[in-house]
Amino acid sequence: MTSEREYVTAHLDDLHADLDAWVRIPSISADPAHAGDVAASAAWLADALRRTGFPTVEIWPTAGAPAVFAEWPSADPDAPVALVYGHHDVQPVDPLELWEHPPFEPTLVEGPDGPELHGRGASDDKGVLIVHLLGLRAHLAATGRETPAVTVKMLVEGEEESGSPHFEALLRERADRLACDVVVVSDTGMAAPDVPSAVTAMRGLADAEITLRGPAVDLHSGSFGGAVPNPLHAMAELVAKLHDEQGRVAIPGFYDEVRPLGEREKELMSRVPFDEQAWLAGPAASRATFGEAGFSTLERTGARPTAEVNGMWGGYTGPGHKTIIPAEAHAKVTFRLVSDQRPEDVGPRLRAWVEANVPDGIEAEVHTPPGGVAPCASDLDSPHVEALLAAIGQAFDTDPADVLFTREGGSGPEAAIEGALGAPLLFLGVGLPTDRIHSPNERVLLPMLHRGAEAAAHLWRELAARRA
Amino acid sequence: MTSEREYVTAHLDDLHADLDAWVRIPSISADPAHAGDVAASAAWLADALRRTGFPTVEIWPTAGAPAVFAEWPSADPDAPVALVYGHHDVQPVDPLELWEHPPFEPTLVEGPDGPELHGRGASDDKGVLIVHLLGLRAHLAATGRETPAVTVKMLVEGEEESGSPHFEALLRERADRLACDVVVVSDTGMAAPDVPSAVTAMRGLADAEITLRGPAVDLHSGSFGGAVPNPLHAMAELVAKLHDEQGRVAIPGFYDEVRPLGEREKELMSRVPFDEQAWLAGPAASRATFGEAGFSTLERTGARPTAEVNGMWGGYTGPGHKTIIPAEAHAKVTFRLVSDQRPEDVGPRLRAWVEANVPDGIEAEVHTPPGGVAPCASDLDSPHVEALLAAIGQAFDTDPADVLFTREGGSGPEAAIEGALGAPLLFLGVGLPTDRIHSPNERVLLPMLHRGAEAAAHLWRELAARRA
Repeated sequence: MTSEREYVTAHLDDLHADLDAWVRIPSISADPAHAGDVAASAAWLADALRRTGFPTVEIWPTAGAPAVFAEWPSADPDAPVALVYGHHDVQPVDPLELWEHPPFEPTLVEGPDGPELHGRGASDDKGVLIVHLLGLRAHLAATGRETPAVTVKMLVEGEEESGSPHFEALLRERADRLACDVVVVSDTGMAAPDVPSAVTAMRGLADAEITLRGPAVDLHSGSFGGAVPNPLHAMAELVAKLHDEQGRVAIPGFYDEVRPLGEREKELMSRVPFDEQAWLAGPAASRATFGEAGFSTLERTGARPTAEVNGMWGGYTGPGHKTIIPAEAHAKVTFRLVSDQRPEDVGPRLRAWVEANVPDGIEAEVHTPPGGVAPCASDLDSPHVEALLAAIGQAFDTDPADVLFTREGGSGPEAAIEGALGAPLLFLGVGLPTDRIHSPNERVLLPMLHRGAEAAAHLWRELAARRA
Repeated sequence: MTSEREYVTAHLDDLHADLDAWVRIPSISADPAHAGDVAASAAWLADALRRTGFPTVEIWPTAGAPAVFAEWPSADPDAPVALVYGHHDVQPVDPLELWEHPPFEPTLVEGPDGPELHGRGASDDKGVLIVHLLGLRAHLAATGRETPAVTVKMLVEGEEESGSPHFEALLRERADRLACDVVVVSDTGMAAPDVPSAVTAMRGLADAEITLRGPAVDLHSGSFGGAVPNPLHAMAELVAKLHDEQGRVAIPGFYDEVRPLGEREKELMSRVPFDEQAWLAGPAASRATFGEAGFSTLERTGARPTAEVNGMWGGYTGPGHKTIIPAEAHAKVTFRLVSDQRPEDVGPRLRAWVEANVPDGIEAEVHTPPGGVAPCASDLDSPHVEALLAAIGQAFDTDPADVLFTREGGSGPEAAIEGALGAPLLFLGVGLPTDRIHSPNERVLLPMLHRGAEAAAHLWRELAARRA
């Protein structure tokens, strides 16, 4: 009998060949010219899942790009059901001239931490997701089973990089086929090659647009300057007040539902090695950190809610100058949310705060589109997380108690899955912060995929062992 | 012998006919399609000045639209020299559909304060300037002179409504021909039909553009939000700090050179009737006043320096939202200046203040173009102002001590005339705040022109009587 590791090690060529073939398909969902490639990517994945042994594989059309669904029932009638989530579409590649190798001609590069595969999607999400194919084969080989210890379903969407516009509709329509006990999200990463870790939460998102109106028309600043309120000044004062001296969002009630970081999570986050200067010099390309007092940079970007003005405009913005007091000023603001904040609470609180903070003579309008993204988080005390940590620990030769926790600062469709299916989320992903996802020269570290395939193999056994 | 008033009253038809003919010429300097009309306007004025009796009348070409120069020397070898300044170009007329009468078909309308002539330029500046033609004839008739008591020069430019781009060059080139003892600016107004008044000052102007830079590129607000400085937040804080709690400009040194309002001027300004609610409901179209504590609206718009952000922008401004921390934020600021502030002092003080007020991690650039407009003011204790008040008092049947003072908040080429010719400024103008200059349905109140012609007639005699 072979072990999961032995099986994975013996079949790495299959994993490499599959990833190479998949990355060659330029499945850019944002570009209508690549719609055929996105469909080809779905077809390739469906075929690969059939080769893996999934008895049911279907391509599900949507109003946009197709998703791929697969199901491999466990022969054990009491087996829990796990749904793997990922996506087969990729980001655009521009600026193309910054790529060292053609983005859709996967290229092996020997890096300081081992062999890397360069190419668009090599990490996000084709590489991170593909570990499940070899992982499931290794699970069967190592346990001597003909069907997995848990029923494994997979849902791989084709529009994640375009904001998943049709994903919630798909979840609702196919809820019966997607029913599960736990969702395994494979679209995230670990802290570093030598730091096995698990994402425990993703932030939510609410967005708003603030419009301030003063005079009915742009006024001559010579005739009126200094005597009537200027909407741009009022907007500046509003945005300046959006955070208090401590860097906290100043909207009353904003933090009311925030679940504080637990001691265990805080401790496991604090052990994540983090070179702040290197981070600032990297994609952040910023000159200093900044933020809420009392929290580390990793906590600020993952565990705390934020308010960021993403755009602000008003008045004359052309060459030279135009001496006006403009009639209007505008700002776009997005809020990142953490458990247990709700996107729908942001609008009314923001509106009340804006109205209380504009000067006499300025009228405010706050537009908050419906929707938003709820934050989501794993239940750290659940047997599912215990199984995840055990699986990662075995694959990385680490005590499960030393598998660290990280948080994803971004927002994705994961909360929608949890909401639609009512199943808790686990995050198993072996990307790295240095993978340059969404940027030129995206790559994946192959040893991370090898460990990931092994962790995926262990996970099904560990989940079955802890069935409720 | 006839009096100035008798002569003016007997010849009002000439004034009306002249203004009607001149307003029919659509001399819009901002529109190249009207360049021929601007030239025709200059030619019409030159002809009218010759008819008036000026022995020297010349059309002076510039790199843009032509100016008109005229000179009528006094036979008295010791007579002072006065230079009248005005302009013969007009503002564009859009939106045309808001005009009740075609803008270049002057139409007589009976209004609540007397007959009005409607048309573009009826007030600004053709009406306000044209009083000098009848005024000079009345001066000669009433004094029995064949030449004026002072040497009268006129300089009427053709690009004032386009920012006078070639005017300073013209002043430098023609300085010898323009040499004078006093400049009479006829491009301003009085407080109300029944409130004879004189403008005593115009504000200057300095402009600047502030750029704040944070990250090298736009960052993903999910990955970096809450942990690196956001240039839009920094710009908002900067603009919010630009004024203190009292509405004063917070830049150190900004007020150092401000000449306080004298007691006499403050008192004469305070007696100007001003209906603030009517003003807010008029072109201001604003819902409340706002500004520097301790000053009235008239003082704020005329006698105090200001800082106004005229435009502000950065980040994403399109539809929907884009979750970025933008790399840059921008603001355009103009400062209105009063005596004895200098435009060239603003840049260095602003730059030092910005640099002291941006957070760590943000780099600031402050661009202040050379130039700017100096403030200008009449010397209220001079014999010239005494002559002006005497002339206005006689024309309006008012004690000269009861002719009130107002200030013009805008900035124009007048300071350049003072600077180039080294002569003090007087402001004789009979426009009204209700003349709708630069707007649809511009009009002039004919009784104001009648009084203005008489005041112009008195002015030459009064100036000659007070020669230095």
